[in-house]
Amino acid sequence: MSDVEARLKDAGFTIPQPVAPVANYVPFVVSGGLVSVSGQIPMGPDGLAFEGCIGQDVSVDEARAAAELCALNIIAQLKAAAGGDLGRISRIVKLGGFVNCVSGFKEQPQVINAASDMMVLAFGDAGRHSRSAVGTNALPLNVPVEIDALAEIRG
Amino acid sequence: MSDVEARLKDAGFTIPQPVAPVANYVPFVVSGGLVSVSGQIPMGPDGLAFEGCIGQDVSVDEARAAAELCALNIIAQLKAAAGGDLGRISRIVKLGGFVNCVSGFKEQPQVINAASDMMVLAFGDAGRHSRSAVGTNALPLNVPVEIDALAEIRG
Amino acid sequence: MSDVEARLKDAGFTIPQPVAPVANYVPFVVSGGLVSVSGQIPMGPDGLAFEGCIGQDVSVDEARAAAELCALNIIAQLKAAAGGDLGRISRIVKLGGFVNCVSGFKEQPQVINAASDMMVLAFGDAGRHSRSAVGTNALPLNVPVEIDALAEIRG
Repeated sequence: MSDVEARLKDAGFTIPQPVAPVANYVPFVVSGGLVSVSGQIPMGPDGLAFEGCIGQDVSVDEARAAAELCALNIIAQLKAAAGGDLGRISRIVKLGGFVNCVSGFKEQPQVINAASDMMVLAFGDAGRHSRSAVGTNALPLNVPVEIDALAEIRG
Repeated sequence: MSDVEARLKDAGFTIPQPVAPVANYVPFVVSGGLVSVSGQIPMGPDGLAFEGCIGQDVSVDEARAAAELCALNIIAQLKAAAGGDLGRISRIVKLGGFVNCVSGFKEQPQVINAASDMMVLAFGDAGRHSRSAVGTNALPLNVPVEIDALAEIRG
Repeated sequence: MSDVEARLKDAGFTIPQPVAPVANYVPFVVSGGLVSVSGQIPMGPDGLAFEGCIGQDVSVDEARAAAELCALNIIAQLKAAAGGDLGRISRIVKLGGFVNCVSGFKEQPQVINAASDMMVLAFGDAGRHSRSAVGTNALPLNVPVEIDALAEIRG
């Protein structure tokens, strides 16, 4: 078990099975020392764990839990990209966070912070990333949050 | 003619002339083995080929056709970036898809799949990419789809 | 003073102090010759300089001024990333622009052009970048514009 997994386990989190896309794209691409991870949604072991739009049918706290699950799904993809060894992920470079919300909602950062916190919990200082956090009026499957990622991987 | 162009031609598609931006940005930047392609819209030889918002005045099928045209415009920019030789594009790393839709629309993946399929038609396994697909309430010129891309290019 | 700062000063602009995030993310990450800059908002020396949604309570001209300020904040982060020497930033690779607007608004490019112009004013031809410009129904703190960036940095 890598240090990353040990830290997550100590905090009560388990890395899920990576979710496979059902289309002509892939969950990650490794290119020249970087891994690009496809936008992850709050899919849990029993299917979609969160659904809805903030300000309408989802609270900020629920959206934060959804963002946390997106982050765990990103970590699952990074583990797969690294052939099972998360110690090969040397830096989280960027998170791109999209928050499904009503017009005028302005706490996207508080929502995506839950994903940022998960990255630092898992990777320590190497988990500190650049990021963007924006709102949107609609997301796939009506999920409250979608997050993609870029990370460094070493040979 | 590169293999990529031959495959597209066999399937009945022609790579369009690349569209030039009319502002202080450029359609692509090559940096360290990667090409970053600016967000492409469904511009055809006679101007904008698709306009509108899904759920209001554009169907999912029309949006899929628009996404396909965005993909062809991305391929046109990659060809220009590669000095005409698409054989130099060794991998499509990422597509970033934005779908102009009403609130609550949740089939963004089905729309952007049309662009993903085009990449795999053109580049085979090297066309399999990571991606994000999100909704938005508004896009430039009121187009239904905008897609940007990151790809690997070799010397 | 670098050439970049001299050009900005001649045009009447000052590079602001870089804005620090107040969460588990960082304003930029340097990785393998690239700098990824977090989404910048129109924060000025006295706090938020612009707030609102285009088509509702912000004009295109105000949003352009906000985009310009986002661009200056990006330059401030690049300066910090380069240890104070903007001459080390060899290319602006990409801007990702998000415009807070009502549904159907279609002049996102005109808004983000103000940021693109600032990059070319500051960096000359090295400031010509790829970009995407999209609309959104909501942004953090209800700002009219958020822009992130990717740039080349040399040793």
